[in-house]
Amino acid sequence: MLQESSVDSSGSRFAPLVVLELASDTKEEAITWLLSRIRDRQQNGGAELLVEQLGPGIGVKEKENPNMFLVGASMQRLLCGAEDLGLFKECTDGSMRAFTFASKHNFKDFKGDGDSFLSMAECQYVIKHELDTLRAKEETNVPGYSHAKLYPGKSIIRRLLSKGILIQMFPLHEKEELKRLSFSWYKKVKLSLQPLDDIRHYYGEGQALYFGFLEYFTFALVPMALIGVPYYLFDWEDYDKYVVFAVFNLVWCTVILELWKRRSASLAYYWGTLCRKKAFEEPRPGFHGVLGHNPVTGRAEPIYPTSKRHLRVYLVSLPFVLLCLYLSLYVMMIYFLMEGWALSIYDENPTFWTHILLFIPSIIYAVVIEAMNLIYRYAAEFLTEWENHRLESSYQNHLVLKVLVFNFFSCFASLFYIAFVMQDMELLRQSLATLLITSQILNQFMEAFLPYWLQRRRNKKMIRKVQKRRMYEEKELPLVEQVRLEADMSTYLGTFDDYLELFLLFGYVSLFSCVFPLAAVLVVLNNITEVYSDAFKMCRVFKRPFADPAANIGVWQLAFEAMSVIAVVTNCALIGMSPQVRSYFPESETQLILCTVAAEHVLLGFKFILTFLIQDVPKHIQDKLARLEFESLEALKKKVKSDSAGRQHEHQSL
Amino acid sequence: MLQESSVDSSGSRFAPLVVLELASDTKEEAITWLLSRIRDRQQNGGAELLVEQLGPGIGVKEKENPNMFLVGASMQRLLCGAEDLGLFKECTDGSMRAFTFASKHNFKDFKGDGDSFLSMAECQYVIKHELDTLRAKEETNVPGYSHAKLYPGKSIIRRLLSKGILIQMFPLHEKEELKRLSFSWYKKVKLSLQPLDDIRHYYGEGQALYFGFLEYFTFALVPMALIGVPYYLFDWEDYDKYVVFAVFNLVWCTVILELWKRRSASLAYYWGTLCRKKAFEEPRPGFHGVLGHNPVTGRAEPIYPTSKRHLRVYLVSLPFVLLCLYLSLYVMMIYFLMEGWALSIYDENPTFWTHILLFIPSIIYAVVIEAMNLIYRYAAEFLTEWENHRLESSYQNHLVLKVLVFNFFSCFASLFYIAFVMQDMELLRQSLATLLITSQILNQFMEAFLPYWLQRRRNKKMIRKVQKRRMYEEKELPLVEQVRLEADMSTYLGTFDDYLELFLLFGYVSLFSCVFPLAAVLVVLNNITEVYSDAFKMCRVFKRPFADPAANIGVWQLAFEAMSVIAVVTNCALIGMSPQVRSYFPESETQLILCTVAAEHVLLGFKFILTFLIQDVPKHIQDKLARLEFESLEALKKKVKSDSAGRQHEHQSL
Repeated sequence: MLQESSVDSSGSRFAPLVVLELASDTKEEAITWLLSRIRDRQQNGGAELLVEQLGPGIGVKEKENPNMFLVGASMQRLLCGAEDLGLFKECTDGSMRAFTFASKHNFKDFKGDGDSFLSMAECQYVIKHELDTLRAKEETNVPGYSHAKLYPGKSIIRRLLSKGILIQMFPLHEKEELKRLSFSWYKKVKLSLQPLDDIRHYYGEGQALYFGFLEYFTFALVPMALIGVPYYLFDWEDYDKYVVFAVFNLVWCTVILELWKRRSASLAYYWGTLCRKKAFEEPRPGFHGVLGHNPVTGRAEPIYPTSKRHLRVYLVSLPFVLLCLYLSLYVMMIYFLMEGWALSIYDENPTFWTHILLFIPSIIYAVVIEAMNLIYRYAAEFLTEWENHRLESSYQNHLVLKVLVFNFFSCFASLFYIAFVMQDMELLRQSLATLLITSQILNQFMEAFLPYWLQRRRNKKMIRKVQKRRMYEEKELPLVEQVRLEADMSTYLGTFDDYLELFLLFGYVSLFSCVFPLAAVLVVLNNITEVYSDAFKMCRVFKRPFADPAANIGVWQLAFEAMSVIAVVTNCALIGMSPQVRSYFPESETQLILCTVAAEHVLLGFKFILTFLIQDVPKHIQDKLARLEFESLEALKKKVKSDSAGRQHEHQSL
Repeated sequence: MLQESSVDSSGSRFAPLVVLELASDTKEEAITWLLSRIRDRQQNGGAELLVEQLGPGIGVKEKENPNMFLVGASMQRLLCGAEDLGLFKECTDGSMRAFTFASKHNFKDFKGDGDSFLSMAECQYVIKHELDTLRAKEETNVPGYSHAKLYPGKSIIRRLLSKGILIQMFPLHEKEELKRLSFSWYKKVKLSLQPLDDIRHYYGEGQALYFGFLEYFTFALVPMALIGVPYYLFDWEDYDKYVVFAVFNLVWCTVILELWKRRSASLAYYWGTLCRKKAFEEPRPGFHGVLGHNPVTGRAEPIYPTSKRHLRVYLVSLPFVLLCLYLSLYVMMIYFLMEGWALSIYDENPTFWTHILLFIPSIIYAVVIEAMNLIYRYAAEFLTEWENHRLESSYQNHLVLKVLVFNFFSCFASLFYIAFVMQDMELLRQSLATLLITSQILNQFMEAFLPYWLQRRRNKKMIRKVQKRRMYEEKELPLVEQVRLEADMSTYLGTFDDYLELFLLFGYVSLFSCVFPLAAVLVVLNNITEVYSDAFKMCRVFKRPFADPAANIGVWQLAFEAMSVIAVVTNCALIGMSPQVRSYFPESETQLILCTVAAEHVLLGFKFILTFLIQDVPKHIQDKLARLEFESLEALKKKVKSDSAGRQHEHQSL
């Protein structure tokens, strides 16, 4: 399964799964302490894992960090860890149940010692969990670091991370597995689906759900794209039929989002994350506060008053976001002024140079927008960090919300302005097409090919360096070099940007679908290349990320649904403004508006009823979940009955 | 605790809790069989309860039903039943935990043998549950009734009920307790709150939540009422200020509904229903289908395809409801025609008789509406029964939805017509006031005093009859007579009508609040009397209902929220139509409408954000729930750890 095995301190070989990189100047006593805690038995509060220092590379240089450690575990330990985590696995009868060591032979893929029962991603997740929950005992600080305070129950790894002693912790790639995956995923151009199960196997559920969503979204847009083409080709200006198209679009948007929930539930069920009970969430590494006691766990933990956080959110972050939105509007207004000014110069004196001048405002605007997005992103991260959220999930939600709102504005504000203030449908269509196409090309370049090129240069340098010393036929790197190379790869920061991109594309398709029916076609084409570039990026550019046992796409579901509500409003308004619809109400504009508003309300109402009627979890999955629930209740009852029978027996014999 | 004890078959006395009334012509073998099943030990599949036939009354008549049975149980059996049900009780440390017999001494109110640990309502609920889950074994039919088919696992009581062999099953009142409750509840006029805990103690959580909601709703309306009075007294026609009032109202409606969720969660937590795991829901008695196997429990059970039910719902029920709504609109149009015709006659010839004629259309309309509501209610019940829902909850939801939509229409359609088609604000105000006041007076009369008067007559007759034979000083009835009297009382059909009334009142307050600010005052006054009449009705008029361990007000929360959304739309439209607001846009009606629509959208958006921001469960309850969850996870983990340590030990010793 693994490319190479290593020798642990006790003499037996183990497969390295996770790498810990400590700062190169870490004090010896801290290292000794950490390693002993990791190796210590569970009864003594240790993690009972195997750990070994990474040997020096072939081309040893002074700047190479000696403090890199490989972590692994025995299969028995991993299986116990999986039980501890409550991982769900498929049973021989086809149902999904929480894995327990005692009932291991009831599980479908459990053979022999269970060597291939857990995927490597799962093993790595178990190790991450065990390391994360390695807690301080009586230590008051990390040995050798008096400022790195500890208290009983504090996660050691999190303190080391927040104090910069632990630089990073990452799981290793599997060369063979990765080759196989990348071949079936993106190396051959094919019409088949993505290997979602393999992706999940290698990268975990969070990643697989993203690619599942990307694929689903693409397929869901195909009908829209197919209907859009004839609209584009034949009925460019016939708004009568656009009304039908737009209504279809709105219903379709709602339906696909609802059906995605069902598909997501179905995927998550078979991947075992749907009914897995989440462990109690620990505070994120950056969280700080006065030491107190957590009301839930009773453990010592920093406490930060919610009211203070609310003050920071509502009195600082919210006004800041609003100010940024205002600024972005202001910049947009300047852009339109500049555009008008350039146009007037061109109209006065149409030469080659003034024609060039026409493009200047757009270019400046695009650059300014990009710069603003970048600066805003940093500001949002800083602010959200400063809000001091206790949980990673809460931090993520606040960050996503901030970035989402601003990106929505900066992307769509100009389109809204053109549509509803300037009311220039021709310009709207042009801008929409330009924005869509440019953003697609730019994104894919920035996202995959540029980092790949950089990575490739580094990779080649490393290979060349190694080749200087030894000669490898297959150009394969030995484990030590491979680990160092992976440590240098960029860190994958999660699916945030990928989802954000899809969100904006969904906006282009849905918000103004009735003026530009070709949008769906463009997005479908983009998504097809996106699958390849994202897959490539995951396999070749980034460090392997830890698996993330997600059961759904989280806050993004909400974001997409909000977008589809906004889409109803904008589409109704666009249709109401079209000259063709206006011609039906020649005498009274009031009536036109009232009809449009009424139609909008009916559509919104219909949308909500539809959301309500389509069940979020398919019936057969619901049945399976209910069966699991029922069985646990029955088991409890049987226990109660046998207990009470015992009691009654006792009672009677008294 | 109980008024009188009875002697069971084995010679020991037991307190009767529940009455079973079988048809008077039930065959002897069926009775013998049923009683033996009820008395049989749990190991043999019996309910292990105590049961005894009710003796003949004092004034024995031929028409008196001899087949009435009192059911009770030993305290031990009741406590085991409570554990079986997973009832939550307060522990000595103040937290709420599922009661288990083994840990009984950790619970706060457990003293001695636990005689007063369970309330009588809880004991009755335990008995109901045990009777309901008494299942057929090998019997193929009820002895003596070849048409009353049974199959292994079928609930006996439900089959007896559906075949009419069992007429009713009801819990007994406790005279002393009831006297105390009614004294603190409605017998003294006071400013203090309702004794919600006592109500819950006597009637169960469902009832208590209704009265809690009624009380909460009344208090929540007080600020509106207080603001409404000066508006009514001083600024009758000043729409400027109405805008402020209406916006306040809308925000208030949203906030009170959200805060109610918090209060309801809080009440349900302390009543132990919030985190209680619901048992698997059995099919309702009327449900029929082909015998198959339930995919969840694996038990034999009638199966009815969902697709068929969907066909019935969407192809029959839905068109029927729409047709009824259309009819109701038609009736309303006739009413307005008649009204106009009466007015024209009066205008032509204003005499006393033509003045009387003016009231005729309203009276006819009111009578027709009442009749239509009644007929529709029966039709809705018939249709929902015919839809053949498997679960009682699903049946209830479909029935509530049908009745709700129709009642909403028949109550508010005329107001909508006056407001938006006739645009006569003066008439709207008058109609609103008339409708509100009439419906209040009528309701309280029909609901409490009329049934009470009928019940009182029956009661007196019974007392007189008893007094003929013996002389009682306290005019108290002996148990036998009391049981027969209660069996004759009307059955309380649940909180449906009570909630429906509140829902319509909420509509009067919220939909047109900006034209009639006094509505809140009237509703507050009504609610205060409603508390008394409902309490009176519960204590004196109806049979005691079984407790219903509800955790929230269910579908009504949704209904109230839907009403508050509609309220935003109507209020915005009313404000937009007011001459004062119109005068701000003298040149352009279009702009007025656009502004109104924009304001409406902003308000709706704000409303949704507010709904999102206000958490449904208060923080301290969330913490307690999380603590419970955390403890169960930790306990599981400890079990896993000790198991795995055992395994490792085993492993090492091999």
